[in-house]
Amino acid sequence: MLINQSMVDKAEALIPELVTSLAEPKAVVEIVADETAFQGWRVDQAEKQNWQEQVLSKGDSFVLDFEGHLVGYVSLKVKAVGSPPDAPLKLKLTLGEMPCEIAEPFDSYDGWLSSSWLQEETIFIDVLPAEIKLPRRYTFRFIKIDVLDTSKKYNVSFEQVACIAVTSGDPSNIAPLPEKLSDELALMDQIAIKTLQDCMQSVFEDGPKRDRRLWIGDLRLQAQANYLTFNNFDLVKRCLYLFAGMRLPDGAVGACVFEKPHAHVDDTRLYDYSLFFVACLYDYYVASEDLETLQELWPIALEQIEIAVQRLDEKGIVRDDETWWSFIDWHPDLNKQAPTQGVLIYCLKRGLGLARILGLTDKQQYIEGQIERATQAAVTELWDDKKGFFVSGVKRQISWASQIWLVLAEVLPVEENAALLNRLFEEQPAIGMTTPYMYHHLIEALFSVGSSEKAAEQMQAYWGEMIKDGADTFWELYNPEDKKLSPYGSNLINSYCHAWSCTPTYFIRKYLI
Amino acid sequence: MLINQSMVDKAEALIPELVTSLAEPKAVVEIVADETAFQGWRVDQAEKQNWQEQVLSKGDSFVLDFEGHLVGYVSLKVKAVGSPPDAPLKLKLTLGEMPCEIAEPFDSYDGWLSSSWLQEETIFIDVLPAEIKLPRRYTFRFIKIDVLDTSKKYNVSFEQVACIAVTSGDPSNIAPLPEKLSDELALMDQIAIKTLQDCMQSVFEDGPKRDRRLWIGDLRLQAQANYLTFNNFDLVKRCLYLFAGMRLPDGAVGACVFEKPHAHVDDTRLYDYSLFFVACLYDYYVASEDLETLQELWPIALEQIEIAVQRLDEKGIVRDDETWWSFIDWHPDLNKQAPTQGVLIYCLKRGLGLARILGLTDKQQYIEGQIERATQAAVTELWDDKKGFFVSGVKRQISWASQIWLVLAEVLPVEENAALLNRLFEEQPAIGMTTPYMYHHLIEALFSVGSSEKAAEQMQAYWGEMIKDGADTFWELYNPEDKKLSPYGSNLINSYCHAWSCTPTYFIRKYLI
Repeated sequence: MLINQSMVDKAEALIPELVTSLAEPKAVVEIVADETAFQGWRVDQAEKQNWQEQVLSKGDSFVLDFEGHLVGYVSLKVKAVGSPPDAPLKLKLTLGEMPCEIAEPFDSYDGWLSSSWLQEETIFIDVLPAEIKLPRRYTFRFIKIDVLDTSKKYNVSFEQVACIAVTSGDPSNIAPLPEKLSDELALMDQIAIKTLQDCMQSVFEDGPKRDRRLWIGDLRLQAQANYLTFNNFDLVKRCLYLFAGMRLPDGAVGACVFEKPHAHVDDTRLYDYSLFFVACLYDYYVASEDLETLQELWPIALEQIEIAVQRLDEKGIVRDDETWWSFIDWHPDLNKQAPTQGVLIYCLKRGLGLARILGLTDKQQYIEGQIERATQAAVTELWDDKKGFFVSGVKRQISWASQIWLVLAEVLPVEENAALLNRLFEEQPAIGMTTPYMYHHLIEALFSVGSSEKAAEQMQAYWGEMIKDGADTFWELYNPEDKKLSPYGSNLINSYCHAWSCTPTYFIRKYLI
Repeated sequence: MLINQSMVDKAEALIPELVTSLAEPKAVVEIVADETAFQGWRVDQAEKQNWQEQVLSKGDSFVLDFEGHLVGYVSLKVKAVGSPPDAPLKLKLTLGEMPCEIAEPFDSYDGWLSSSWLQEETIFIDVLPAEIKLPRRYTFRFIKIDVLDTSKKYNVSFEQVACIAVTSGDPSNIAPLPEKLSDELALMDQIAIKTLQDCMQSVFEDGPKRDRRLWIGDLRLQAQANYLTFNNFDLVKRCLYLFAGMRLPDGAVGACVFEKPHAHVDDTRLYDYSLFFVACLYDYYVASEDLETLQELWPIALEQIEIAVQRLDEKGIVRDDETWWSFIDWHPDLNKQAPTQGVLIYCLKRGLGLARILGLTDKQQYIEGQIERATQAAVTELWDDKKGFFVSGVKRQISWASQIWLVLAEVLPVEENAALLNRLFEEQPAIGMTTPYMYHHLIEALFSVGSSEKAAEQMQAYWGEMIKDGADTFWELYNPEDKKLSPYGSNLINSYCHAWSCTPTYFIRKYLI
């Protein structure tokens, strides 16, 4: 990998102090099978609420509900009841963001992401009474405690279960919403902010339960929401320096970065994600006016552009073959060519903005040339006038993603973009959207053509529906038509507090107040 | 409980510094089902021995053999191989003293002792490479490492697995054996010493795997072996002060003591075990000549005698009813009356010895009176002249335990005792011996009547057979006729390094060299 140690050092010097707060369980609950409930699980209050007075023996269990999403460190105090304990206490803890994680046995998990993400611990406590501070960080709302074994001579009682929650998002920086805003939007804003907050740790994580790391695709949206809420510029700056300081061998920005045991970049390369470095830097400068950082990181942004345009073919279209991966969305059948052309043009335009700010005339001209070339090609090669849609790949696929990204790229005049989006809703092409990340871009596209009402309506239909389904924080994956959807083979492993789903607060605060 | 804090403080001031040593695995092995092997499991060398060069993925496992019994703290170094690890590593460690613990799934355990004794850990490692120092102490020879999950992007290699072994028995204090001793006895002595050493921690533990605590029945035998090997007088003194400083409400010495979180006595009361405080103190004084300790602890020893004789009925026999528990042996059908009468007389005689040493004439007279009363009663009430055996309980049970303990109590003249033991071997009463603890007393009885050859032969037939069956340390339970024997419902939970089985070194060094 290509390491610029001084940039990495700058990033590491910006590791934030986390804000901590104590959370305690609010109720004892039972998770009950219910076909009418989200994912088939209903949360009922248990009959006995006085969990601290219960005496538990082998085989007993209970579920605590903290009634809110938490990221942090769990501790528990447990004591023996009866004779002196003559054998270790064996406990199982199961922690879940959602009821399904408590109710569905983890043994049943058979997805393609590692089962090691499922949050459970089997612990042996040799000495009682004990205060156990679990060393790992968990992301959860519910904790199930199973007393796997005591001995014939003693039982146990739990005196305390608590969580020290952590975040680098300080809520005191958030401006209050105007009172005129509807309750629905105020609630959506609040849940979006909580989502962002729980993802703000020592980097902007994608999901604090899974994958717990910095992806640039998520970072871009988190940073945009952050500029209108927490205003933690240093955390964005740290993330930019991490990506800039550790790149793939040819200079491309990597898709994600790990922090431990020392900062290192992953070997995953995503065409669109490398380009988003340009957009992230642009957004950062516009929000922070931090010229020094812009000046230092500009060459790396420019390099992303130079690397990206090498993929344009003789017609000026990004080559679509087996040698690349552009993320765009999780849809298994989505052809990535046209939407990626949109991402390229979108990022070229942010690059042009940066060149202008820096007064680099030759770079402006270079980028303008690339924009012209890619835009012309998009119209000539990807626009199907008969169908009234952009098409993608050799099979000329018509997808929501292609239209949305080429609207965001502003390839067509704004009225034509507005008409294109209307046509999209009317004709509903089969290749739809699967993630809040893609929905974000739909909403952004609607606002960009002035369709604020439609945008707000779509926000309600998507994030509003998540709220009705019980979201405390917004989810990585959601399909109102298929509520057990997971691209990973099991909804147990989905992240239920996910960076790319936090943008309702951005839309509300940017466009709706 | 009856607490004498100054005695407890004296005990706590004697907590020993443990001697540590590093142990590393010697081989990779496979545990193979084999009906002809002990407990049905054979240990084979694995084909690949270079475990540090193996790359393991989900579902892989290997078994390391340290080729010797260990008590200590395990650490392991593990690194990722492949892409940067994008999910935690999930490992299962299974630690066993014996092959059965590695080969038989712990889920299958259904005994009455707590399954929490079974040594396993499921651990999640969030950051790789990692050096994991497991916080709990384990007792083992074999470690199985199961890689439960990695991710599609990485595998793992183990760079080091090690154990810091701990003991308070310093082997440099042990006198070498004379060269003339047979190899068989030399090996038996060595294994017995290792057994004792691994049980010597901050107290004399009964078994370092299970129960890991101080029982006075075990202490008595350990101390006797210790005086001929490690000579750690302070550790015995600490244990005596623990029992003396924390007694049951009526003043009886408890059966066992826990050290943590602070020293406390268990609520288990065993008639024979309380009395053994007298014998332990006697042995300690004879070995150490520590008069100060004897003087301080004598009143408590005397109190045990006073409490014990209250159980004698009008005929002078210990009452046998539902209100007591005398341990003697694990045999489920053993009537405890006659053997306990033997323990009482045996301990009264040690008490008399102490009173003489202290020159307490009135106490001598008192104890002599009790010895006279209990001995007379044993002969009158328990001796069945027709059968030539002592009988026990209303059903006049004839057991090995009754004969052995009444021989040790020297109720009959030595020649008659010798004849009684011969008769025992000839007639083989059905109620036999189930533990090395009971075997110890048989051997001691044989030596007491001068049958050294028979004693040595019995040692070979019992402990020698354990060695043939693969013992690195001597076991809590062993029946050459029933090798899967466990009074707990499963041989998985048996202790395979057990205090009360360490006495071959005592016999060898006291009687055979």
